[in-house]
Amino acid sequence: MQEIKAAVVGASGYTGEELFRLLTNHTMVKLVGAYDVRNVGKAVSDVHPNLRGIVDLKITKPDYEVISKVVDVVFAAVPHKVAMKFVPKILRGSARVIDLSADYRFDEVNVYERHYDKHESPEVRGVYGLPEIHRTEIKRARLVANPGCFPTAAILSLAPLIKEHFIDLDHIIIDSKTGTSGAGAAPTGVTHHPLAGANMRAYAATTHRHSPEIDQELSKLAGRKTKAHFTPHLVPIVRGILSTSHVFMKKRVSKETLLTLYRKFYAHEPFVRVVEGLPEINFVVGSNYCDIGLELDADGNRLVVVSAIDNLTKGASGQAVQNMNLMFGLDEREGLRAPAQRP
Amino acid sequence: MQEIKAAVVGASGYTGEELFRLLTNHTMVKLVGAYDVRNVGKAVSDVHPNLRGIVDLKITKPDYEVISKVVDVVFAAVPHKVAMKFVPKILRGSARVIDLSADYRFDEVNVYERHYDKHESPEVRGVYGLPEIHRTEIKRARLVANPGCFPTAAILSLAPLIKEHFIDLDHIIIDSKTGTSGAGAAPTGVTHHPLAGANMRAYAATTHRHSPEIDQELSKLAGRKTKAHFTPHLVPIVRGILSTSHVFMKKRVSKETLLTLYRKFYAHEPFVRVVEGLPEINFVVGSNYCDIGLELDADGNRLVVVSAIDNLTKGASGQAVQNMNLMFGLDEREGLRAPAQRP
Amino acid sequence: MQEIKAAVVGASGYTGEELFRLLTNHTMVKLVGAYDVRNVGKAVSDVHPNLRGIVDLKITKPDYEVISKVVDVVFAAVPHKVAMKFVPKILRGSARVIDLSADYRFDEVNVYERHYDKHESPEVRGVYGLPEIHRTEIKRARLVANPGCFPTAAILSLAPLIKEHFIDLDHIIIDSKTGTSGAGAAPTGVTHHPLAGANMRAYAATTHRHSPEIDQELSKLAGRKTKAHFTPHLVPIVRGILSTSHVFMKKRVSKETLLTLYRKFYAHEPFVRVVEGLPEINFVVGSNYCDIGLELDADGNRLVVVSAIDNLTKGASGQAVQNMNLMFGLDEREGLRAPAQRP
Amino acid sequence: MQEIKAAVVGASGYTGEELFRLLTNHTMVKLVGAYDVRNVGKAVSDVHPNLRGIVDLKITKPDYEVISKVVDVVFAAVPHKVAMKFVPKILRGSARVIDLSADYRFDEVNVYERHYDKHESPEVRGVYGLPEIHRTEIKRARLVANPGCFPTAAILSLAPLIKEHFIDLDHIIIDSKTGTSGAGAAPTGVTHHPLAGANMRAYAATTHRHSPEIDQELSKLAGRKTKAHFTPHLVPIVRGILSTSHVFMKKRVSKETLLTLYRKFYAHEPFVRVVEGLPEINFVVGSNYCDIGLELDADGNRLVVVSAIDNLTKGASGQAVQNMNLMFGLDEREGLRAPAQRP
Repeated sequence: MQEIKAAVVGASGYTGEELFRLLTNHTMVKLVGAYDVRNVGKAVSDVHPNLRGIVDLKITKPDYEVISKVVDVVFAAVPHKVAMKFVPKILRGSARVIDLSADYRFDEVNVYERHYDKHESPEVRGVYGLPEIHRTEIKRARLVANPGCFPTAAILSLAPLIKEHFIDLDHIIIDSKTGTSGAGAAPTGVTHHPLAGANMRAYAATTHRHSPEIDQELSKLAGRKTKAHFTPHLVPIVRGILSTSHVFMKKRVSKETLLTLYRKFYAHEPFVRVVEGLPEINFVVGSNYCDIGLELDADGNRLVVVSAIDNLTKGASGQAVQNMNLMFGLDEREGLRAPAQRP
Repeated sequence: MQEIKAAVVGASGYTGEELFRLLTNHTMVKLVGAYDVRNVGKAVSDVHPNLRGIVDLKITKPDYEVISKVVDVVFAAVPHKVAMKFVPKILRGSARVIDLSADYRFDEVNVYERHYDKHESPEVRGVYGLPEIHRTEIKRARLVANPGCFPTAAILSLAPLIKEHFIDLDHIIIDSKTGTSGAGAAPTGVTHHPLAGANMRAYAATTHRHSPEIDQELSKLAGRKTKAHFTPHLVPIVRGILSTSHVFMKKRVSKETLLTLYRKFYAHEPFVRVVEGLPEINFVVGSNYCDIGLELDADGNRLVVVSAIDNLTKGASGQAVQNMNLMFGLDEREGLRAPAQRP
Repeated sequence: MQEIKAAVVGASGYTGEELFRLLTNHTMVKLVGAYDVRNVGKAVSDVHPNLRGIVDLKITKPDYEVISKVVDVVFAAVPHKVAMKFVPKILRGSARVIDLSADYRFDEVNVYERHYDKHESPEVRGVYGLPEIHRTEIKRARLVANPGCFPTAAILSLAPLIKEHFIDLDHIIIDSKTGTSGAGAAPTGVTHHPLAGANMRAYAATTHRHSPEIDQELSKLAGRKTKAHFTPHLVPIVRGILSTSHVFMKKRVSKETLLTLYRKFYAHEPFVRVVEGLPEINFVVGSNYCDIGLELDADGNRLVVVSAIDNLTKGASGQAVQNMNLMFGLDEREGLRAPAQRP
Repeated sequence: MQEIKAAVVGASGYTGEELFRLLTNHTMVKLVGAYDVRNVGKAVSDVHPNLRGIVDLKITKPDYEVISKVVDVVFAAVPHKVAMKFVPKILRGSARVIDLSADYRFDEVNVYERHYDKHESPEVRGVYGLPEIHRTEIKRARLVANPGCFPTAAILSLAPLIKEHFIDLDHIIIDSKTGTSGAGAAPTGVTHHPLAGANMRAYAATTHRHSPEIDQELSKLAGRKTKAHFTPHLVPIVRGILSTSHVFMKKRVSKETLLTLYRKFYAHEPFVRVVEGLPEINFVVGSNYCDIGLELDADGNRLVVVSAIDNLTKGASGQAVQNMNLMFGLDEREGLRAPAQRP
């Protein structure tokens, strides 16, 4: 099989770095371009010193017309609103695109516009890139909209329950905790170590932009409009999301029944592991796994489902590579076989 | 006014240490005894080197009959099941007792026995030592049962809502996050730094022993039996609890109405601060404050209430000193005026 | 005795915050002014939410002529080069000044100018505010130059050895490790949590500005020009400096002789504790203590002296309050009696 | 080429886990045995949940006679004194051994016995497994003694200087800082998160067992008996060693000359990177790299050399895999190509 020529737009950021980290270990990919408007002219390994001796590319200003012709796949590792400006240009050529921003995640443009910004290319449609739910569409997509980090953890932890109508849809609470790398590479007061290093906080407690994304996907699974209640928290670790869903059972079933449901639902998934107890961050950090565990209260009334992912891997760049593997007909696990580091 | 002679039973543990830290700055207290079955013969400041040059006591084995006669107040900074063995002995003398264990927190002994152990002195009754709810009874109590750390944060964040019947009592979710000092001074795999230092986990997700304590107090406030759904998490900070309550409104009110409710409810409380945004751990850590903030969703349906405390101060030893101040007719703030360290 | 009216210039920064934290617990001080060019018009407690309900001042733009007349002492909690612009104006009035910047720390202006900047008021002279070495001069000073954080830890750990000519002055290595709060309140890439949270680095390994300050004071103690070799490191804790001095003995003495030397040297010092083993950060953090311990190798050749301080307390604002106490004839410990928090 | 059959003795510990993590990504290795006296009967992935779905072995009690016949290489990931009991048995068969303990690191048994314990198989000799210094001997060794974590970082940072006689051998200071995973998997007070999580300490400041190991190797490089002065510190990160060497120049050379020296010395080394500035932990953590940087003071007198490694990878199991590659004639980088995670 032929090598896939891949380029990263947004080479300076954390998801860009994580793409380099993963793609250098991918046997079928040749990294051919590192693009950004920042750090132009610098070596990738000057910006990301962990890649010294490993990635031998310079960062250049993107010329999208050229890119669209010479690469097979472009990873858009950029903030929302930036992707929509260049993705249509790339799609005019032959390259496929995996967009890590929010720009093409929404089925309805007005949802995007209500929570983000005016959309500049509403006619271009992406496939929501959660392989466990949309594998078939991803395989034939030219544009995959890679999911947000919180939605990945939340949707995977709830999908079996909602698909099978086990729970009360009006009282779904998703209480998530993320490490600081989710905030991106730009220093701010919130991530300043003296204030963040021994701290915790909730933020955007009822208004986070990942809410409509979660709702879109849960609604499709439920077969009716559904609103989950999502609240994120910032905790002083660098990588990792722990997502705790609190839901109420519509019918009384045993924990064993629930575990069986999850195990069946994810039986053929290479990156979802249903665990016996409850998952922890260091089961998954650095890997592309989503670990899921659950606990049912003694009354069989409330169910707690906990999922753990690395926000930069399964929550971003790892999932993007998983999507690329699907789009190009490769083994889904290629480049993503490394286990988590623990300790 | 006369000096209060105070003794700590359980001098080696973290709540013992915190009592020493706070009581050395209390103008009306004389520390007269440091008791424990561990570290007997050692100086307190050998076990707790931060107290070197400050606390000049040796740890001795407790003789409860003697203690009960020579001190005015005993702080029982011991695990559950230990306190019940000696508290009755002390109460036979003239000393008053503030018990930091769970042994006397429950109105109904069978609730204690279901969640903890066989009770050995069920005839002895304590007052639940949450001053914001039970100040009057605390003032005249001989035995105060100091609340658990999670219940303190949870009850204070929900009391106004429940007292005023604002919320649906069947869908109360309390998702709490604690630092590791809550686990106590004995090293275990769960708190071993290599595994805990960059990790997060939920534990006892539906079965934590602080649940019945929360339910007891919320039920009294509600005027009917109430069951909240409580799930604790461990995060890699040393001190601090962030408690996030997710509740559903019975009636539609504005955020301003809710803030006014909280401000009135806590208007005369020296250690509860209702904040504009959402509280963070470093607003309170090292201090006796409980900071509370809230956010109402756009539909006016779900309310998120976040409270922050230091688990060793307002969640344990600080609250114990606050209770002592009430029991002895002192200014409630005495010894507890230090603000949090931030950064 | 009369209340001391104190003002803080630089109310928004971390040393400003720490001054408020300490001075609110000082029985003889009335905080009368919070000045800054940032955050003008805001409440101190909006900038520092830990002080809500405790410090009830608004931040105002400083008018130094007025300040110099209405306050007894001004704390200049500002960066170097800022202090030199206003300290002379304040000294024209009756107020005394404790400057936490580097501007008046050097006996020779050309040393300052080589390592910092052109000096604008070289004729104004301060007393180097390390009470353990310069107590007498501090007592009668109108301007105290509060020492840097690294020099405080380093000088105190070496003073007895150098004063008594025990060590080879040509091979003094000071390898220091600091928490991130020493970097100040402005977010940068170096203190961005995703990069700093699980990281360590050396910086300014041979060129740090605290070197000449250390050399000035060690030279005075040695009675001849001395150059120590100082290298700082950044570690992912918020507060605390651990300073490890590696020195070579000129004569063979026992560890016990060395401990006796230190104990005598610091016998009357309220804030220096000579410990049995080696000190740790959590023996001192949040307190004004400097803990010192040492270990001599089996050959009696190399000596390792370790000192621990809180960089914001004994390394900055706590020492400033200690200096104020001396300048105003108070008990040196006033406002500084709180032990460290441990855990 | 044929697959190498590998077994790990000491499957429950951290270096055991790290061996599994690395060997599962090694294209030429088949993991055939996971041995330990603890956790017998458990799945490796129950002890190390990050390996779930990846390593499908059960832990069994070792029968060394059998092992020695059926495997090609045994990794002894055990404490000192344990290895010496079984390594001779394995060497009686055909298997080769890489011992991660200290038991065979010393050329002179009496050095081992002075710092560790009575040796039980002094007649068995290993090759000191630092490939950058002893590659030729490692290639033909049947027993490789894998270096300690601190010695790896220290020796690599000083080897070029010592080999070329650039520095004063009487005043070599090595001040090292390690994460907590170096302490191993057994919980203790020192690594208990409440005490370790926001703390720093020096330990074994002049007596650490890695000192004689450093001295042995530096002496060989120097061509004469040399004693470096080594002091380790514990800092609150999980993985990583930063080693700061402070040395004094015998002759005056430029920084550029020194960098050229290092670059030449390590020109053909796949895992040593000489960096422009100073290396940081997150340049290397999770990878097998040792990054080295240096800074010369303005006088050309003192040189600071900083090296960074992951203590569990280049400092233990990664280096063990590198040694295995050499012993079996493979590309030295096989299984070790993953870059560090940053952030």
